[in-house]
Amino acid sequence: MAHGRLITLEGGEGTGKSVQRDRLVDALRKAGLDVVATREPGGSPSAEAVRDLLLAHGGDWRPLSEALIHAAARSQHLAETVRPALATGRWVVSDRFSDSTRAYQGWGQGVPLETLDQLERMVVADGKPDLTLMLDVAPEVGLARAHGRGQAADRYETMDLAFHQRLRDGYRAIAAAEPERCVLIDAGGDVDSVAAAVRAAVRDRLGVPI
Amino acid sequence: MAHGRLITLEGGEGTGKSVQRDRLVDALRKAGLDVVATREPGGSPSAEAVRDLLLAHGGDWRPLSEALIHAAARSQHLAETVRPALATGRWVVSDRFSDSTRAYQGWGQGVPLETLDQLERMVVADGKPDLTLMLDVAPEVGLARAHGRGQAADRYETMDLAFHQRLRDGYRAIAAAEPERCVLIDAGGDVDSVAAAVRAAVRDRLGVPI
Repeated sequence: MAHGRLITLEGGEGTGKSVQRDRLVDALRKAGLDVVATREPGGSPSAEAVRDLLLAHGGDWRPLSEALIHAAARSQHLAETVRPALATGRWVVSDRFSDSTRAYQGWGQGVPLETLDQLERMVVADGKPDLTLMLDVAPEVGLARAHGRGQAADRYETMDLAFHQRLRDGYRAIAAAEPERCVLIDAGGDVDSVAAAVRAAVRDRLGVPI
Repeated sequence: MAHGRLITLEGGEGTGKSVQRDRLVDALRKAGLDVVATREPGGSPSAEAVRDLLLAHGGDWRPLSEALIHAAARSQHLAETVRPALATGRWVVSDRFSDSTRAYQGWGQGVPLETLDQLERMVVADGKPDLTLMLDVAPEVGLARAHGRGQAADRYETMDLAFHQRLRDGYRAIAAAEPERCVLIDAGGDVDSVAAAVRAAVRDRLGVPI
């Protein structure tokens, strides 16, 4: 059986990752693929418990501690969900993955990027995504969308605009540094047009007819 | 104000770390020192929450994930408890610290020691203990003591004897590699005689009259 593919969606607040993940998963399933939709932090029972811990002690985590906890959750997510699915030929589409740690804890909160690279080598090793879609939008637009959802603002949404600009800079820097893995997607349009751009990127890069 | 000292007690199951920590803390306080008694995993509010998470999903953690979670808890413990105490001249005595991760997840469970060294450099950096007391006893003796406490066996106590022998080998290897920091204490005797050996080590190494 062919090995599956891992596709990750990345981006700051209000870039539409969750919705676009769901749209992409639908399109892949219509093309006949067996697809697992997942997310980080979380994506497996123990990793979801770690997610709950992160949220429960929101303001107390030091950036390095948070990076370590995300790495632990990712290690569990990979072991319990991602790798077993890929090994049986299923495709996996994740709302966030290790670029989020690099963007939020590195670019956003100042953990040295070399430290985050070390953590990724420990946890992800040669299991990097086959394709990462970076949903890119101006922070002002993304934050307005996120607030418009009507949910309570999470702790990142309440951070200042400069923080969110650093996230965007980080994601764009990652995409520029790894062009074989990453595609920057303009996420400023409506859901349908962004979904079309996402499908086009997956079609072009991974050769699947969606 | 003088900077405080960090003393850690290490060792496998049933070596008497908790009791000896309490005895040592009493002796240091009688000598007029201001002492914080703490433990790992835990030792601060968020780190105790991490401890609870580790115990709640006991069997599910992969060794690397567990090492990462311990590192995160340690980062919080250092920031919230240890460093503030040392900075104000207090002494800190901890039941377990980073050698436990090296022994349990490295020697015991096979996480590469280089990975654990990297994590220690990230989290502990130049904050290594001033003195580490390695309580050493044959695993058969330690396990019999641990079981004799009448508490439910924890997940490590239920592991096989070879695992506990690897822990002991690991602690002894660490002590041999860092003789300036570590003192191996024969913990096979009764509580009073081990406490006397602990006090003697602290007196000799740190020059405090206890």
